Parts: sequence; structure tokens; C-alpha cells
Amino acid sequence: MSKNKLPTEPYKGVRDFYPEDQSFLNYFVDTCGKVAEGFGYVEYHASILEPAELYKAKGSENEEIINEQSYTFTDRGGREVTLRPEMTPTVARMVAAKRRELGFPLRLFSTPNVFRYERPQRGRLREHWQLNVDLFGSHSPAADAEIIAVAYEIMKAFGAKDGFVIKINDRKNFDSIAEKLHVEEKNKPALIRLFDRYSKVERKEWVKELHALTTEASKDFELDAYVSVIDSLFTENSEALASVHRTLIAMGIPEGVISIDPTLARGFDYYTGIVFEVFDTDPQNNRSLFGGGRYDNLTALFDDEAITGVGFGMGDVTMYDFLEVRGLIPEYLPATQVYVAVASPDVLPAATTLAGELRAQRVRVALDFGEKKLGDQIKTAAKHKIPYLIVVGNDEIASREYTVRNLNSGEEKKLSHDGLVSFFHSL
Amino acid sequence: MSKNKLPTEPYKGVRDFYPEDQSFLNYFVDTCGKVAEGFGYVEYHASILEPAELYKAKGSENEEIINEQSYTFTDRGGREVTLRPEMTPTVARMVAAKRRELGFPLRLFSTPNVFRYERPQRGRLREHWQLNVDLFGSHSPAADAEIIAVAYEIMKAFGAKDGFVIKINDRKNFDSIAEKLHVEEKNKPALIRLFDRYSKVERKEWVKELHALTTEASKDFELDAYVSVIDSLFTENSEALASVHRTLIAMGIPEGVISIDPTLARGFDYYTGIVFEVFDTDPQNNRSLFGGGRYDNLTALFDDEAITGVGFGMGDVTMYDFLEVRGLIPEYLPATQVYVAVASPDVLPAATTLAGELRAQRVRVALDFGEKKLGDQIKTAAKHKIPYLIVVGNDEIASREYTVRNLNSGEEKKLSHDGLVSFFHSL
Repeated sequence: MSKNKLPTEPYKGVRDFYPEDQSFLNYFVDTCGKVAEGFGYVEYHASILEPAELYKAKGSENEEIINEQSYTFTDRGGREVTLRPEMTPTVARMVAAKRRELGFPLRLFSTPNVFRYERPQRGRLREHWQLNVDLFGSHSPAADAEIIAVAYEIMKAFGAKDGFVIKINDRKNFDSIAEKLHVEEKNKPALIRLFDRYSKVERKEWVKELHALTTEASKDFELDAYVSVIDSLFTENSEALASVHRTLIAMGIPEGVISIDPTLARGFDYYTGIVFEVFDTDPQNNRSLFGGGRYDNLTALFDDEAITGVGFGMGDVTMYDFLEVRGLIPEYLPATQVYVAVASPDVLPAATTLAGELRAQRVRVALDFGEKKLGDQIKTAAKHKIPYLIVVGNDEIASREYTVRNLNSGEEKKLSHDGLVSFFHSL
Repeated sequence: MSKNKLPTEPYKGVRDFYPEDQSFLNYFVDTCGKVAEGFGYVEYHASILEPAELYKAKGSENEEIINEQSYTFTDRGGREVTLRPEMTPTVARMVAAKRRELGFPLRLFSTPNVFRYERPQRGRLREHWQLNVDLFGSHSPAADAEIIAVAYEIMKAFGAKDGFVIKINDRKNFDSIAEKLHVEEKNKPALIRLFDRYSKVERKEWVKELHALTTEASKDFELDAYVSVIDSLFTENSEALASVHRTLIAMGIPEGVISIDPTLARGFDYYTGIVFEVFDTDPQNNRSLFGGGRYDNLTALFDDEAITGVGFGMGDVTMYDFLEVRGLIPEYLPATQVYVAVASPDVLPAATTLAGELRAQRVRVALDFGEKKLGDQIKTAAKHKIPYLIVVGNDEIASREYTVRNLNSGEEKKLSHDGLVSFFHSL
């Protein structure tokens, strides 16, 4: 009989969110949202469907994403559609569309799902949720600092007091580095991507790749000498970078948490100024958690007058892994406060009335319809992790006194009808 | 210069959610969620991507959806994927997957986005959000009644005290109707769909279509006689239907709001018992708002032991239209409570400190970085509809006294630092 049955698994690489999973997703979204709203950011959203051309325009690296890693298909009307792989092009599109009405500086946040077609692995699913926080229309380093402060406050709101550092840099610094290393303008994106891999690649290999980018006549430095040349490049910081660092310290971010890292580059080609990245400092899991930066040219895809932006994205899966290792995932508690079970089917109308009366007082009540034995009804409440139980029987109906049982501790309390309401309000 | 620029419109038939749009979507989701949680429903979610076979299995009418109205494409791994056109098959899949662990009765809700490939028109976009409320594992008419009560309480929570009616019926009644009309088993789905159009089609046309379904020898009734035969079919109600009606009245739903409609059928083939539909009673807009019913066989697609379910779906666009006509859309108010503007750029550090101090007391503050004149900063606050303004200048820094301006009324208050915090807490 079991053949011809459909499998119950979700589509490959995506997740089902049962109540406990959804509870974490809600916690992630709400915690981030509250911090962002504290800084004056307002929520926006968009469809997951975008014209494919939105991503094709962005340059070499993103073209790779569109060609090999995106969900792109042709709709019945012949339009090429992409399931958004990230939110930044979408928000740039939306801001460009209403630039006259929106008012700057403009602070926006959203927690969309984003899609990548890739081999599923730990922390890299085909669909994940990603907080996006963006500030448009300010060139002030105070704007870069604020975005980084939002990222820091979110980490704190999750209870992560330490165990992470925030590295900052200014991509403009790579301009003078490119000049000193005789790297031509056209090779600068490749230079920046190479710096992005500075701490991930064996040094000798890294220098070899650098040699390939430089036009300098003599390419046969001694390796050691070359490394010291590179180190000497990192002594000058832009005024913007110094200002961002100063402001963040003044905003109360501990000096041990925030540091300038002159090799920090970030992957995306569209960053043009300050970039930052939050790293897990756990020796077992020393990796980037999330990051962002300033992009000056994204809205120029739509309009001659570009609007500057600065922002970051933070994924739910990466944060879950970070928080889980540290025991910072809150214990699941359903919204339901109390389960009303019935001692016999004939008291269901009275139990329905009690449940309705409690709901009218904003108590969240699940009612059992009495189709199973009382013991099984209580097991259902426990499976759902509902914290309290009331059993309605003829005695309770006659006396209008109810016993509330704490299903975790087993503790019981006998309460009048009004007492019940006060009890649940006091939780 | 403006050629080669990308268009700023979203993909055809979907929406961008700017803050005011998102604010309504949040209001829709939160209002529905609070009512559902009051009845003990817990939130779940799933990916928009589902294996296409999930929809193909469901029968004739839904096959039409999959073939002509769905977003279905083949992924790079050769899998056929569909953007879910509705949530019920997904939740049935999830419940079937964990039937041993979940505990019944099981109450679930979600507000997913769902996709239909159709010509965009008023109230029918290609993507919309849809509240789904489902109760699994109870055969009791009390479960059907509860689902309908949730729908009613949601309408009340939106402020819709009247202007709508809830019609209920039992699809099982169509069994005896089919028998009396000599409609064969294989034509029953078509009969039910025909009844679904009972009030939408001209009566003579309707009877002609009915004739085509019946196997009765003589098909040449007089039209009037036939109509009276049909009317006589509607006199018997199932015990379940009577019980649901009784329970809903006992739960406090006014008799004028809830009524039995023996022609009510609902579109989807998968309903097997009680069905209901909420109708707008406005003469200008007399149409179905949303509805639902009992489905006994959906989890049988996955497992030999079917789990009964009862539920409904309610779309954001339809509800927006309903509420807008009645002036029930709440006025937009951003989460941001106050805009801190700076009288001159040199006071930005002090303004940043003030903003940080207010935030530490849970006041939601947006800060202007002083790149524009004060008048323009205030215009930005007004564009964002932020209700209050504080201007920081050297006087304010020296005195630590601040003037809070209500940007709607123009009213001003001079407050100490502590006074500011109390003021915003009191809002």
C-alpha cells in the first residue's frame, strides 16, 4: 500500500520550520528588528521574484552567481526571473524608484529569505533568512559607524558579550596600495579579492598571485623582502576609517572588540568605502559571521544620480550555529499558556465556555475536544510543551473552582474563575 | 545617459513593500497571529520551494493549477520545483512527516507568501500573503466550529463588527443530493463545483449544466418544476452541520452573522465535510472574502493512515480591500519615536551621545548626521512621519535641557534629560 505515496521531505536544501524551528526564526527576526528600530530603521520588504537583469549588471563576480549559483528561470511570458540571491540590489532598486519621496538619510531594514543554488552543507543551505540593515544618502563616517554599532548591539542583544571581534577597513586604502604595487586600474577588483583571501591562503601562494597582477618591471623580489613591503603598505589609514573607529569607541564598543584590519576586503565588488566583518573568535570556529560596508554606485544602475548607501546582511543559519555553541538559544515555549482538558465528553460545552471566557481576558488557551482519555489529553499538552493544564469535570463546573497544574514541576493550585485570570496575567 | 539604466519596477504582478506597505502587512500578520495564538495555535513555516509532484497528485482541478497557473521550473539537478500556490499541501506534508511526535489535536498557523501565475488584476496578484490556520487530528464538530470561530474573531480583531456573513455547509449533504439527482459517483466533483457556482450563474444555464451530469432517464423537466426539486433538496442538514451551528451560537457569534447555506461548496476538491465562507455584505462588493473547511484525505498522499484536518486561508490583498473601504486601515506610524537633528555639524558627537543614552532607555531614536541645513533635516523627519523632534545645539548641550516638538501639532515641551526619557516612556 505504501508505494505511490509522496515523500514527506522538503525540497532539497531547504528547511521545514516546525513550531520550535519557527520560534528561533521569530527570535532571530524580532531581536534584530528591535535593535534596528531602536536606531530609527523602518521595515520594508519585497517579492523574492526579481527580473534576472538586476543581478547580471553587477559585474564579474556576481555574474558568476547569476550563471552558476542562482535560481533563474524563464516565466510563461518569456521573462527571465531570479529568486533573489541577496537583498541589496532589491533595496537599491526600491530606493532609486522613489528617491524624490523618501527623504534622506533613509534607514531601512528587512529580514528576507534569499536563495542560492549550491550543494547543501553546514551553514550553507539553498534558502536562508538574512537580516539586511541599510542607511542611504549620508556620506558621513558617522553613518558607517552607526551601521557597525547596530551590528554590535544586535550581537549584544543575542547575549553574545564576547567571543567575537569586529574588523574594519576602508577599501579606498587599496587605491594607494594598488599604486605602490603597480597594479593597473582594471586589475583592482582582482587585487581586492586577493586581499579578501589574505588570511586564508598560504603566504607564498598569495604573493605569487599578487605578482601576476602587478605590472612592475622586476617581478623577482625575494619572498621575505616582498612580504615586508606588503606589511609597510598597511601603515596609512584613511581619515574616514580613523573617524569611524573613534566614533565607535565613543559609542561604547570595547577596544578589544573593534579593530582596524588593513587586509579586510569583503567579497562583493560593489563596496567602495568602509567595510567591516564580524568574526567568531572561538578557536574551533574562527570564521566570518557576517559583514557589510559602503556602496556608492548601486543605485546608479537605475539612475544617473547615485545615492550612497552603507549596510550589512546577517544570516539566520550562521547566527544559530554561533549561538548554539554558546548555549544562547532560548528554550522553546509555545505562545499557548494553558491546555484545557475534559474529564468526559459531556462537559465539552462547559469547557468551551471556560476557554472562551479566559480568551476574552487575553489568556491563550488550547482546548481538547475530549476524543481521547484524559491521560492521553495530558500527554498531548506535554508534547506541545504547554506549561499549564486545567482539567474540567462536573466538580469544577459545579464549584467554579479549577485546579491549575504546572506541567513541568507538577505543582498544583486551586483557583476561582477570577483567580485563574489573575494567575495567567501574572505570568 | 539614461539609456542602459535598469528599470526600477518590481517583477510583473508582485509588490514592493515600502515602510507604509510593510506596516499594513505586519498589522495583518500580527492581528491574525494574536487571535490564532489566543486559541492555542502555534506558528510554523516552510520554504516557498516544493517538489512539483506535491501538487500534481491532488486531482483534476489542481492539476489545472499546476499546469497553467503555477510557477514550476526544472532546477539544475533536473528536479521539478514549484513555488507553492497554496500552503495546505505543505502543512499536510509536514504533519505526515512527524505524525508520531506531534501530538493531536494539533493547532498550526502560518502566514506564507503564495504564488499564482495569472494575469494581474485587482485583488489577484501573482504573489500574495495568506494566513493559514489548521487543526489536525480531531473529528469533532467542535473542531470545525473552533476554526470558524477563529475566522470570526479575526474579523472582529480587524474592527469589522458587521458588513460580513459566514455561510456554512456540509459537503456530505451533496452525497444525498447526488443520489436524489441520479448523479454518478464519478461526476460528484463536477456536481460540487457546479453548486459552488449556484449563486453566480443564471438559473436556466445552471440547470442545463446540471442536466448534463445526471443519468436520469428523462432529462426534459420543465425548468420551474426542476428548480422546485432542487429547492427541496436543501431541507436536510447533517448532524455535524447542526452541531457546528449550535456551537458557534453558543460561542457568541451573532445569529445574523452565521447561516447555513446548502449551496455552499468551495472550490478545492479536497474538502470532505464542513465548509465555510466569509462574504462581504456590501452591495457594491458582494463577494467571498475567504473560507475553508474539513479535508480528510490530504495526509493520505504521504501515508496510509490519513489524519483529518480542518482549516482556512485568508489573503492580505482581499482583506486590505475590505478594510480600506470601511476606513479600518490603521494610520501609518513608524516605529521611530523621535528624530534628533543637529543645529550645526560640530555638535554631532554630543547628539550621538544623547541618542545613545535614549536608546539605552529603550527610546527609538533616528539621528541626523548634520549634512544638510536644519530646515531640511526637519523635512526629512516629517517625510518619515516621525512624530517627535529634538534639535541639539550648543545651548542644549550646555543646559542639558531639550525642546521636544510634536511634528503633527507643533506643540513644544522643554524637558531635562531624565524628563525626556519619562516623556517617551509615557507615550
